[in-house]
Amino acid sequence: MLGYGELLAFDRMAADARLAPDLRRRAILSEMAAGEIANYRRLVGRLSALDVDPEAAMRPYQEPLRAYHDRTVPHDWLEALTKAYVGDGIADDFFKEMVGFLDEPDRGLVQRVVHDSRYNEFAASEIKAAISADPKVANRLSMWARRLIGEGLIQAQTVAVARPALAELIVNASGDQSGVQALLKRLAQTHGQRMADVGLNN
Amino acid sequence: MLGYGELLAFDRMAADARLAPDLRRRAILSEMAAGEIANYRRLVGRLSALDVDPEAAMRPYQEPLRAYHDRTVPHDWLEALTKAYVGDGIADDFFKEMVGFLDEPDRGLVQRVVHDSRYNEFAASEIKAAISADPKVANRLSMWARRLIGEGLIQAQTVAVARPALAELIVNASGDQSGVQALLKRLAQTHGQRMADVGLNN
Repeated sequence: MLGYGELLAFDRMAADARLAPDLRRRAILSEMAAGEIANYRRLVGRLSALDVDPEAAMRPYQEPLRAYHDRTVPHDWLEALTKAYVGDGIADDFFKEMVGFLDEPDRGLVQRVVHDSRYNEFAASEIKAAISADPKVANRLSMWARRLIGEGLIQAQTVAVARPALAELIVNASGDQSGVQALLKRLAQTHGQRMADVGLNN
Repeated sequence: MLGYGELLAFDRMAADARLAPDLRRRAILSEMAAGEIANYRRLVGRLSALDVDPEAAMRPYQEPLRAYHDRTVPHDWLEALTKAYVGDGIADDFFKEMVGFLDEPDRGLVQRVVHDSRYNEFAASEIKAAISADPKVANRLSMWARRLIGEGLIQAQTVAVARPALAELIVNASGDQSGVQALLKRLAQTHGQRMADVGLNN
């Protein structure tokens, strides 16, 4: 799921980079995209080492991940950046939670897959600058971020229903259902903090 | 010109990767795209070190490079691969010619910008396999390659007319007009050999 997620994130971020107001910013989003494909390669390498066909392993996740992106196509540069900021932020928090559940070499692999923080800082500073230039932007981007989260949750639910083994894995690793609730709460809290950091309302 | 060329190559290859018949091949073209953006960064770094604004320096080349890509949008996976194979091949040959004209640090920079040969080998083996499965493919892709070269020459001509200083640079470095003719002849010969290597007619 993470592997196909990276491949699709590459594809969509590369396209979103066209929305940038200048070449400098366009190049930075393009580099963020390029980082996703490096992560994809790492994850596929591990699947192959486990003798798993990456194509077959990723097939069940193609439809929900594609649906997420199709329903959250950014209309301008700030929406594109907010999508990268919010999406990569939650993905990284999720990876960090998973680290505790994993043995080596998967633990090390997942630690390497976490995004380069300088890109997050770039996205954060762009969003903050736009809000300070025009405070109305905060409301629009806050709504957009809620839509991203909403669509993400819908697709996560689809995956959990279609792939009970994956849901079970997270339940077992978290201990029990209340462990999962605690995990989701931590993800929600960190997301809320990340939104507040750039002046967005959760 | 090379810098903006890399940025646009990233953008178009990332989009072309969607034409791949499976995830493995899609990832390889995506990685080729990611390599272009790394080269873009290297070239921009050098422009900045020379106190040149990359945006301003690239502006004159945006229109001809965009026109080249707009007129050569691949319709399928083999056209996309042939475009990468032919385009990167000529670009690399050009870079290698330029190395002799440059002092350090530009010489070392241009050497690093040359593409990773394993991607060229991948493109070559895909094209050869497609031709061996269906010999009619050779004719179609040979025509396509001629169109790529034709559009490339038209845009190169546009640049040479609009930017006489650049044309002059290459003339001076080559010695004189006959030096330029010899350079173009070498590029054409290597291109012809590369076409023959995969079973295409020049």
